[in-house]
Order: sequence, then structure tokens, then C-alpha cells
Amino acid sequence: MIVVLKDNPDQKQLDNLIQWLESLNIDINISEGRDTTILGLIGDTSVVDIDLISALDIVEAVKRITEPYKNANRKFHPDDTVLDINGVKIGGGNFQLIAGPCSVESMEQVCSIAESVKGSGAGMLRGGAFKPRTSPYAFQGMRDKGIELLLEAKKVTGLPIVSEIMDFSQISLFGDVDLIQIGARNMQNFELLKELGKTNKPILLKRGLSSTLQELLMSAEYIMAGGNEQVILCERGIRTFETITRNTLDLSAIPLLKSMTHLPVIADPSHATGLSRLVKPMAMAAVAAGADGLLIEVHNDPANALCDGQQSLTPEEFADLADSVKHIRPYAYRSNR
Amino acid sequence: MIVVLKDNPDQKQLDNLIQWLESLNIDINISEGRDTTILGLIGDTSVVDIDLISALDIVEAVKRITEPYKNANRKFHPDDTVLDINGVKIGGGNFQLIAGPCSVESMEQVCSIAESVKGSGAGMLRGGAFKPRTSPYAFQGMRDKGIELLLEAKKVTGLPIVSEIMDFSQISLFGDVDLIQIGARNMQNFELLKELGKTNKPILLKRGLSSTLQELLMSAEYIMAGGNEQVILCERGIRTFETITRNTLDLSAIPLLKSMTHLPVIADPSHATGLSRLVKPMAMAAVAAGADGLLIEVHNDPANALCDGQQSLTPEEFADLADSVKHIRPYAYRSNR
Amino acid sequence: MIVVLKDNPDQKQLDNLIQWLESLNIDINISEGRDTTILGLIGDTSVVDIDLISALDIVEAVKRITEPYKNANRKFHPDDTVLDINGVKIGGGNFQLIAGPCSVESMEQVCSIAESVKGSGAGMLRGGAFKPRTSPYAFQGMRDKGIELLLEAKKVTGLPIVSEIMDFSQISLFGDVDLIQIGARNMQNFELLKELGKTNKPILLKRGLSSTLQELLMSAEYIMAGGNEQVILCERGIRTFETITRNTLDLSAIPLLKSMTHLPVIADPSHATGLSRLVKPMAMAAVAAGADGLLIEVHNDPANALCDGQQSLTPEEFADLADSVKHIRPYAYRSNR
Amino acid sequence: MIVVLKDNPDQKQLDNLIQWLESLNIDINISEGRDTTILGLIGDTSVVDIDLISALDIVEAVKRITEPYKNANRKFHPDDTVLDINGVKIGGGNFQLIAGPCSVESMEQVCSIAESVKGSGAGMLRGGAFKPRTSPYAFQGMRDKGIELLLEAKKVTGLPIVSEIMDFSQISLFGDVDLIQIGARNMQNFELLKELGKTNKPILLKRGLSSTLQELLMSAEYIMAGGNEQVILCERGIRTFETITRNTLDLSAIPLLKSMTHLPVIADPSHATGLSRLVKPMAMAAVAAGADGLLIEVHNDPANALCDGQQSLTPEEFADLADSVKHIRPYAYRSNR
Repeated sequence: MIVVLKDNPDQKQLDNLIQWLESLNIDINISEGRDTTILGLIGDTSVVDIDLISALDIVEAVKRITEPYKNANRKFHPDDTVLDINGVKIGGGNFQLIAGPCSVESMEQVCSIAESVKGSGAGMLRGGAFKPRTSPYAFQGMRDKGIELLLEAKKVTGLPIVSEIMDFSQISLFGDVDLIQIGARNMQNFELLKELGKTNKPILLKRGLSSTLQELLMSAEYIMAGGNEQVILCERGIRTFETITRNTLDLSAIPLLKSMTHLPVIADPSHATGLSRLVKPMAMAAVAAGADGLLIEVHNDPANALCDGQQSLTPEEFADLADSVKHIRPYAYRSNR
Repeated sequence: MIVVLKDNPDQKQLDNLIQWLESLNIDINISEGRDTTILGLIGDTSVVDIDLISALDIVEAVKRITEPYKNANRKFHPDDTVLDINGVKIGGGNFQLIAGPCSVESMEQVCSIAESVKGSGAGMLRGGAFKPRTSPYAFQGMRDKGIELLLEAKKVTGLPIVSEIMDFSQISLFGDVDLIQIGARNMQNFELLKELGKTNKPILLKRGLSSTLQELLMSAEYIMAGGNEQVILCERGIRTFETITRNTLDLSAIPLLKSMTHLPVIADPSHATGLSRLVKPMAMAAVAAGADGLLIEVHNDPANALCDGQQSLTPEEFADLADSVKHIRPYAYRSNR
Repeated sequence: MIVVLKDNPDQKQLDNLIQWLESLNIDINISEGRDTTILGLIGDTSVVDIDLISALDIVEAVKRITEPYKNANRKFHPDDTVLDINGVKIGGGNFQLIAGPCSVESMEQVCSIAESVKGSGAGMLRGGAFKPRTSPYAFQGMRDKGIELLLEAKKVTGLPIVSEIMDFSQISLFGDVDLIQIGARNMQNFELLKELGKTNKPILLKRGLSSTLQELLMSAEYIMAGGNEQVILCERGIRTFETITRNTLDLSAIPLLKSMTHLPVIADPSHATGLSRLVKPMAMAAVAAGADGLLIEVHNDPANALCDGQQSLTPEEFADLADSVKHIRPYAYRSNR
Repeated sequence: MIVVLKDNPDQKQLDNLIQWLESLNIDINISEGRDTTILGLIGDTSVVDIDLISALDIVEAVKRITEPYKNANRKFHPDDTVLDINGVKIGGGNFQLIAGPCSVESMEQVCSIAESVKGSGAGMLRGGAFKPRTSPYAFQGMRDKGIELLLEAKKVTGLPIVSEIMDFSQISLFGDVDLIQIGARNMQNFELLKELGKTNKPILLKRGLSSTLQELLMSAEYIMAGGNEQVILCERGIRTFETITRNTLDLSAIPLLKSMTHLPVIADPSHATGLSRLVKPMAMAAVAAGADGLLIEVHNDPANALCDGQQSLTPEEFADLADSVKHIRPYAYRSNR
């Protein structure tokens, strides 16, 4: 971290600053130029609050050189993290299709979809039980009952299951859920992140609607700082001015995140676009860009789905997508890290 | 709600749609033009999920004519809501300055600031105990102890207090907190909104960083649908491409919200701008635009504040702001509703 | 277009509206419901100004059902447009790599790069002569001299050339330029669009930094309405809150645009990301998503480029990219229109 | 400007960098820390292209300390610039209302509006002759004839006139136009900026729809670098995710710009909001925040305006706005520079 001081800084304030930094075990390299004095901070600057320093009267500018995240940082963990989700591997060259309905609606629905996507190559089953909906009057998911149905489908198909938690008070229901999803709107629900950091459950962390990649990694860092290093990151579209798509899938996030962190990175083209006809091309593009997996909504009757039918594929469309993806995979981008 | 059908819609799907709408107590006015058939939906369409209808194969376009929020809607409650926060009124012509430190740091700090802002005309004391911070390594607030100190300051000054809750598991600590704040990052933490909707505590709901005003009102609707109608809305800046300010205070939100809803609307120029020198002009502008109150950060030693010192005013600067605002108030905008 | 009237509309205003619409050759289907009267406008509604209608006192809401663009609309031209740029075809299954330096700097530079990218499979040479730069103090391009050097490189290599025009007063210099580029900042320079619409030169139209796809098509419509139907659209990244990349490449724009219009659609991963290490993965993703071509910056000495060196590939890196793209192409997305 | 080098930088590249900087008359202060070498660049760094330096292999990070604009910079011109627009002063405590129709439509219309707004206190008349419209099929303004009618209205009322130029080829028509407007979409039409920089006409420069304040000042710098220092800046709303308003008026831009530059700063609440009922509260807020003037659309028959009727005030509403603003002005924000 570089701190540029204003001309003629008050010596007492400068001494206070230096003393405070030293108390954080930061070494300081002072270089005095003709007009400007620059402090180079050396050590673990992730503990230094950049806003605090910016606020000081004697400071002209501050620039962070090293990233404020440590556990998630590839610099300190050069090898890809490979997660084992109840026997299914993801990351480090292991690619997974995760598919299933937006909302769990019935035993028949979820089991039929599960069998079908398994047959097309899906490695995990997704299904929503607790649904974050903008309107209190919209269908809020089957909740407890939905989790039960997912567990039934897991028993029948053997597929590990993924479902979203909306509040830590629901955790007791997630004992047999293999991968716990944190939705985009909860990416900065810091209390939830901290609590999940104390569990040993794999976490699927979705990028917030208007979050930067550094903010996403800081949220992963909240989980990892608690001791839980099993985190998968998911690009699911960001808010932009385009109105045809629900959000804009930021595929540059995939190679960028994979250079910044060792964690697996997947994409969710269904929620990002909100339009079923865009799911296949965006899935193919995400794979070409190097994604470690895809999260795809599949519904046996999209036109009558209780939620987000517009973006769901039929089982047949999913089989076609899985096939297209298989052709791209061998030629997908891999960085030469 | 207007539903435009595609040419030659499948009759069976159309019958299904009509039957489903009728099950929701919606009346339907069908008008068949030369090329286009249009359904006019009449009744309480807030229960109709617009995405569900858009997903249907037979549907070309859907347009909502009436708002999806009811309890918060001024149409159904033409008079301003006036909240009484432990004796302090806000809304309906009652204006309040709410001031205090970003973070509670010590008894001396919070009591000294409380006395000072009270002397300058503040009607309530704000103070952060639980702090949402982007980094797990940044100061997370004094938490339980912070609430205790605020209650102490309340006892000493008689000012009602405002503090942010980050998770419903903290609710027992908020029994004597007069106004519970929901932060911008939790605006769509729907489980928290629902739980607070079951309490009878006044709620200060902040707009999310990239939320529309309708989304803000839908979040208020979550609280109100649970039976708690004591909600104050707060414009606190939205994310834009400008980097000098932390966020961009959207002052058009004030007259707009006041036309859309009967709830009180206040502004937070401190968090919006992130720069103390912009707090006064933006406070004055918010008052001119018709705000029912202001949320202002005040710190006795901004340069050494543990959080957000850059945006805090000194007690003297706050006194000056309060004075400037007093001159604008008599000429502030009032709609002729 | 659907116009929803307010309750009890003033009859005289309604008659005026109907008369005005009929003067535009629009047929009107009036359907009167219990509470609401709806006008269905039938005919060429691209000539109807939606803002004008919205402003009327008697109007509650207006919704456009058909697109406001005609010449660019795939509905009226179902087959892909194939452009022939001086013998090089693009669109309709014809894919082109367009490569070259951000700025033309010298004869040696441009010819050496041109030979090299031609050898790697590029079908056209790009090069900037007039450079739009944020600062008046930054290098503004070689201007007239730059065009001359490009023409020299065209003579030597036989590659058609692409260069950006910044003002119509420069048109006389572009007589032998094969494809004229309109930069993102000029996407809504309507006078320039109109003038280029009167020429018979192929135009490469870049999406504006915060433009929607409909706005991009309306700008193409400006050119086409003048009689020039030779337009290629280019996705080059939109402004978002992410700061690591210069802009965010919106790859969903590719399949979306290709469903909306018959015009060729290409992507520019160099300008979008601003980082050379992201150019290859994003190029591969764009091809997987169905792009008709790529615009790639190549420089023989990126670290000493006079402009945008950060995002330029070396000739060797470009050869590697061209090879990777070749493997993806056979499996790239194609809609079943 | 601070340049942080990577560990063990290549000495030859470093020598090249230093030599290049010295050729730009930049002095360099090298400070070598334990791990990091930092170059402090001293002198007129506005001529240094920050992107060029970032691209170098040996560079870890670059940070600009001083602003890249000089002529517009308040640091070098501490006193407010006061422009005299044909006898009407603006800036430095001189406040002006600029009002008139979005589009000039007829002699009767423009003269009647001009007389009326003059009577309510407007100091200048605005009117659109050349209209930038998203659609080629929308009304494009009366063009040459529109300018003639404005000049007629100027003759009749004595009010200086403001109108937008869309291309420099139109300049001959603007000889008697007192203040030439550059629209938001042309803010980065650099060729137009350069040409207007060579004239001695006062320029009203509107902020681009997604531009930062620094970009706005760099565009002003283009004009001023050519020798024309008569520039007024106009905040007219930026694109955000809110859909009720056309754009979002960023009022923090007013005090911020006034601290960054000595140029006059005005606001355009009509275009920003796009809704006539928001024009008055936003005008009042802009004045409270310290604006030097307002640009207000006034139409004698908004419901039948040929353009943007939704946002126009009637002459009576304008008189009311002018009166409200008069009450706020004495208490408006003034920085203590």
C-alpha cells in the first residue's frame, strides 16, 4: 500500500499514523521527494482499513498494491482448489453441469427432472426450496417441504443436491444438502457469511447484482476467514442498462476470477439472461472462456413453472446443451498458470 | 394489467390462463382486434406474477398498469403517514434531523456527540453497533456492547435512538432501540423483512445500492404485509460510474417516492457522498426537494474515527448544517396532493 | 402499439389523437372494457413517437409491441445479410478475423503487422488514424498520414482495411478505405450517421458505452434509412461497475442481435477488456456464442505502443488466438432460424 | 503521478521510461524501498498518458495525484469565471434562468414563450432547432428555419439565445446564437470540441449520459486548450437503473464541479427527469446545492409539443418555479473557497 502525504504534513499526525501502522505489524518505507512524501507499507496490509487512512488530514492519496483478500488469493495458493461434493469433483480441470428446476414443486416434478438431467450428464441437482422474490405476494417456494423433496430426489438418483439458504436459522434443514447456495441478494449478508464460515459445508457463492469481482472475493474471504475453505464462485449476471435480458452475463469474470483466485468458478446463464433461448449460446461461451461448471434451470413444463419459466430449458433442450458443451470443452480456454 | 396475445393463440392454453386468473379473483376483459387479442385484467393484480404470464407461449407482451404494492401505495392511503418514534414525530410536515456517529466507540464518544447534536436540533440519535463491512478484517462494530452504550446515551439525553440490525437473531438486543435500521445491503434480505414485519417496531429501510424505487417499495411492502406499517424510507445513494463520490444521491427519489407512497422519506447525504464537504450542500438540496428528515454522521474526531471518518461532520459543522437547513425548510418543495 | 387510456378520457383530446394517428396511416382498434379503454394501433408504428403519446393527459400507459426499426429488422429480412468487403465476405456463415494496431505509427509497423496477421488468417487489416482520446493532451493519431500508411499496407498485403472516421469532413480521405468504423462515442452522432447513410461504403458500427441493443439498432437504422444497407454491428463492451476491465464485454448481445437483425455481428475483446491476457478467452467465448467475426488489436511492440498497448497482442499471441478460434468455430452456436 | 515498479525491474526498460519522461520535461524522484521502487513524477503530468505507462512490463501500478486538466482546474484559477453572454452574466454569484421550448415549432410559439419566460425572470431563451433523436423517423427539428425563428425571438425580446449544434458544418448558422450548446451525446465528439475551441463563442457543455465528472472536465479542456475559455458546464442527468425518470439528476455534481473548476455550473432538471412534475422540486434542490443557473423547458401547449412534452412546464408553472427558486437563492450553498 502506498500513502502519498500532502505537502508539509503535521508531524504529530504523521507520528500517530506511523505508530498505528506499526501496531498492526506493518513496516514503513518513507521516501521524501522534493514536494511529496510517500509511505510504502510493507507486510499484511489486508488488515489496514484504506478508508481510515484516506480520511486523515495529512493524506493526499492512498493506493492498495496488494489485494485485500488472502485466503481466496491465488498468489498464496497457486494450485486450483478441487472440491469434492459428496463424491463429485469440481475445479482443477473437473467440470460439472448442475441442473434442475428453479423451484421444487412436487415429488414427480423434481424426480423426473433429476432422472432426466442425470441421463444427459448433469453431475448435481439444483432446486429452489426457499425463493427470494421481489414481491411478498409471489410464490415464496415450498420451503421445508421443498428441501424434503430434494432429499428424496437425491436418494432416488444419487445426485448431490444444491439449494439456496436465505437465513442462517434454516441451517438445520440443510444437513443433507451437499452444496449450500448463497444468492446474489445475500452476497453481502455478512452475518450469514460468517455463520456459514463456521460450518464445514461446501458453499456456492453467487455474485451480487452490482458487485465487483473484488467484492465477490471479499465475501468469499468472509467464509474462508471462518475456516471453511470450500467455496465455489458463480457469475450470474450483473445489472446493466440492457432491458431485453434480465441481467448481463459478465463472462470476462471467468478468466479474471480464475487468475485472481484458486477457487472453482461457474456460470449461471439461466438467471443471467432470463430467456431460455439465450441459455445455450451463453453456456457454450462460458465453457469456451474456461468455466468449471454451469448452473442450468431445467423444467419439464416451463410454460407452467411456478417461477422463472421464461428462462428454463426443457429436458430435451438441456440434453442438446450438454451435448454442445461437450464439443467445446476440449478446446476451452486454459491459462498457462 | 394488459396481456397482449400472439396471433392465433392455442385455445387450450388460453383457457388455462383464463381459468388460472379467475382462480385469483381477477376479472378479464377480452378485446379481439383484427390481428391482436388483448386481455385486460381487472382486480387486485398485485397477486399476479408477471413473469409467469410472460413465459407463456401464447403471450406476446404484458404490461402492468397498476402498481404491485398496496399497503405502501399512496393511491389507497392518500394522507401522509406520521410516525411517532417514542414521542418524536416524522412525516406529514414533521421534519427530523437524525445524527450521530457511524460507529459507537465509547461511552464518552457517544454521549458527547449525542448532547452536542441535541443542542443543534437533532431529534434522534443514530449510532452503529453492528457494522456491515466489505472486509472481514475491518472493524465490525462493538455489537452488543455498542447497543448498550446507545441505550446509555438515550437515557442521558432523552433522544430516541436508531441503530442497524444485521440479522434477526439480534432482535432481542433491539427491545429498547426506538427505530431499527435495515441497511442498503439487506434491502432484499426478504427473511429479515418478513420477521421485522411481525414486530411492532418502527423500521428505517434504506434503498439498496442498485435498486429501483419500485423495488424499495416492494421491500417496504414485505414489512407492511406482515402487519407492521411503521416504515420510513431512506435514499442513501446509488451506485453509478462516478468515482469521486462513494455513491450518487438520487434526490429525484424524494418527490417521486412521496408521490408513490404515504410513508415518510428521508435522505442520508453522509453515506451517499462519502465526503464530509458534500454533506452540507446535499443536505440542503434534499430539504429543498421535500425530504422529511436527514440522517447525518457526526463524529467528535473524524480524522480518528474507527469507520467512515471521511464522511463525518464535526459537531460544529453539524450545527452549521442544521442552521442552513432551517433557512431552507420554509421554502421547501411540497406537492399539492 | 397499445395505448391504455385513463378513466373517462376527454372526448375532444381522444378525437384529436385518433385523427393524428390516422394521418400517419395507422389503423386503430378501440376496445372498451369496464374501466379501461385500450387502443390497438395497427400499421407501421415505427413512425409514431411514443413519447408524444405518453405526454397526453388522457393516456395512462403506452406499450410498443413491434420494434421501432424496420430496415435492420430480421422479421422483414429473415435471411442473413452477407457483406462483401472488397472481396472478403462476412455474415451468413462467413467468419472474419480483423486485426491490426490500435494506432498506425509508421510504415514499417503497419506493414509488418499486416503481413503477420495475414499469415495467421486475418481477412482484414484494422488501424487507427484518427483516435478519439479522452484527453486533448494525448496522442490524437497520425490522421491523414495514418490513412496513407494504411493504404500502403493494403497495397502490399491485399487486405481490405478498416479505419475509424471521427467527423464527416474527413470523408474524402476514406475513398479507398474498405470498411469505415464509427466508434462507440459516435454511435449517436446522428448527423454523421445520416451522412454515412448517403454513401455506399460498408460501415462498422460500434455499440455505445452505455447503449442498449435497441439503441444500437436505431443507429444502424439511421444509416440504412439513408439507403446504405451495408452495416456490421460490433459489441465492444459496456460500462459497468467493474474496474479491473476497462469495460464489460456483453456476449449475450451476439445471439440477441442475431435474432433481432439480419446484419453481421462481431465482437471486439481488445477494447472491451483493455487487458491483453483476457483477449484470447473472450475471443473464444465470442466465437462460441456465434460471432461473425472478431476485431483484435495486434502490435509488434505492445509495451511501446503509442496507444492502448495494455490490450494489444503480439503477432505470436494473435497466431495462437487464431488457432484456438479455429477449433471452436465448427461447434459454435447457430440458431435454428 | 506515482509509478510503482515491479520487483527487479529490467534496467533497460527502466532507463527507457525515465528517458521518455524526461523528454516530456518531467522530473523524477526515485525512491527505492526494501521490495518496491517508486517513481514520483514531478511537473506537468497532464501530458503523460497513464495508459501507456500502465502497459509497461516493469510497472506494477500507477496513480495520478494531480488532475489531468489544467485550463479548467480551479487550483490554477482560484476565482470563479464569470461569463458575459451578450450582456447577461453567469457565474461568480450571477444566477440565470434559461428557459424555452424543447423544439422550436413556429414564430408564434417561440415568441409567445420567450415573452412569457422573460416576464417570469428568465435571462436567456433556449430552443432546439437541430434535435438529436434516437429514431431516424422522429421529428428532427426545424433545423435552419428553427435558428431563424430563434433569432426573431431574440430580436423581439432582447433575450440572448441558446441552441444546440450537432455538427460543426452547421456553425455558419450560429453566428448570432449567443450560447452554443453541445448535447450529452456529443460530449465526447472530440472533433466538434476542437473546432468549437477555435471559435470565440460561449459554449454550454452538457455532461454525457454515463460520463464521470473528470471526463466532463476533460471535454471542457478540449475546448479550452484551443483558446476558448468561455465554457458553462451542465449537469443533465445520468443513466441509472431507475426507469420512472428518464435519467437521474446527479446534484452532488454541482458542489463537486464547483470545487474542481472555476467554470459556471448549471442544471437541467427537465431532461434529467423527463417528467414535468419533478422539474420544480429538482430545480429548487439544484439551487440549494449552489447551481449558477437552470435550463428549463417551457411550452405553451405541452400536451401537443412535437418533442418532449412530458417534461415541459407551462408558462404558468415556470412562473411558479421561478418564484420558488427566488426564495431558495439567498440561502443556497456557497463554499468558503
